[in-house]
Amino acid sequence: MTYCLGIMTQQGLVMASDSRTNAGVDNVSTYKKLFEFSVPGDRVIVLCTSGNLSLTQSVISSLERDIKNQADTTLYSLGSLYEVAQYIGQTLRQIHQEHADWLRKDNIDFSGNLLLGGQIAGDEPQLFLIYSQGNFIQATKEMPFLQIGETKYGKPILDRTISYQTPLSSAAKCALLSIDSTMKSNISVGPPINMVMYLKDSFEIRHRLRLPPRDPYLTRVGEQWAEALKKAFDRMPDLEWEHEP
Amino acid sequence: MTYCLGIMTQQGLVMASDSRTNAGVDNVSTYKKLFEFSVPGDRVIVLCTSGNLSLTQSVISSLERDIKNQADTTLYSLGSLYEVAQYIGQTLRQIHQEHADWLRKDNIDFSGNLLLGGQIAGDEPQLFLIYSQGNFIQATKEMPFLQIGETKYGKPILDRTISYQTPLSSAAKCALLSIDSTMKSNISVGPPINMVMYLKDSFEIRHRLRLPPRDPYLTRVGEQWAEALKKAFDRMPDLEWEHEP
Repeated sequence: MTYCLGIMTQQGLVMASDSRTNAGVDNVSTYKKLFEFSVPGDRVIVLCTSGNLSLTQSVISSLERDIKNQADTTLYSLGSLYEVAQYIGQTLRQIHQEHADWLRKDNIDFSGNLLLGGQIAGDEPQLFLIYSQGNFIQATKEMPFLQIGETKYGKPILDRTISYQTPLSSAAKCALLSIDSTMKSNISVGPPINMVMYLKDSFEIRHRLRLPPRDPYLTRVGEQWAEALKKAFDRMPDLEWEHEP
Repeated sequence: MTYCLGIMTQQGLVMASDSRTNAGVDNVSTYKKLFEFSVPGDRVIVLCTSGNLSLTQSVISSLERDIKNQADTTLYSLGSLYEVAQYIGQTLRQIHQEHADWLRKDNIDFSGNLLLGGQIAGDEPQLFLIYSQGNFIQATKEMPFLQIGETKYGKPILDRTISYQTPLSSAAKCALLSIDSTMKSNISVGPPINMVMYLKDSFEIRHRLRLPPRDPYLTRVGEQWAEALKKAFDRMPDLEWEHEP
């Protein structure tokens, strides 16, 4: 399993992912699931992937190959992130079509989702979720975050904390705590955690974070959050029962 | 959907459930999913149900009918909660067998899980999760809570707060916050919330709580928790990025 999330605020974007991949519980590996494609000054494009690894790796390879071969349509040539989302959706469909029948024979799940965040000169920063079928949705000011993979454990803190007005540094902090909550409740999500923070109109990623397993900072953040939550919990009044003895 | 949970601590048990039932998103109803079967002084038995309503209602009806008809095996006659779990599992299997083929024809999910908590004189308090197939697992000192239904949103707070040593009143508070988190992230879980707290060796339920929609107390708990979480979040230090500009 995997957990990736993207947050879009008025100041920019945060994208984060874990790195655990598992085929069953006895084959657990570490793969990077956050990819940057940027042309400083012109565009910042960040992708996060979840789902079948052979599918998502093939998609990323195909996007890279198109750039290398200077194809007509590439992540560097398209004029808007909307078109980039369409292009990635098409790529996903092609690779799916090529392999799906073979995997279906053995009942292997061959699906994958992607998060696409970034900014292309002339547009606002944008954030998309591209589904396995190639269609996609877009984050809005009302719903400024999107998640893929094991999304539920980490959603309550986002629901309570994130709005379009949230300062970008707080959004980044919240993203890390959302991943921390997920790792605590589900062993199929694990470090290294990769995170980038993108400041609107900078057209360059200046803030990156990679937190490997047992990283002291990651451990400290987890412990501090546990402590803060415990204090918040202790401060809550006891329940008022209907029938006290 | 539904969310029910049970917590077993050294001081006793907490059982809680929401009351929302939906068939699709356009047919949402309210059904109680927490049922008490107690013989004061001898036994306390509490059931929570999730899944297909016709299945779980039939199970509860069947258990009630057996009591009314003074059958040989009833919730009142069995000597241990383990046997009660077996008996409920059998009942579930019978009802499933009777209807499953008809529902399968129309691809209707006909599954349901139950939580069984309580104490029978001579034994310690115990907590079981009975699966749709009639088999079951039991809470332990190491894993003192069990959940059914929409379990993921409410699990992080349990993971961080609950141990076998947690005071029972704190466990009850945590159960309510776990449901509150779930309701905030998933509209298919909703009030009224039903909760009971059982003090070990009392063989009687003395603490009950029913929180209807827009209950001022429920609203206050939700708001206070949101506020406490926000403060805890604000107090967390900002991330230490690798490449500050």
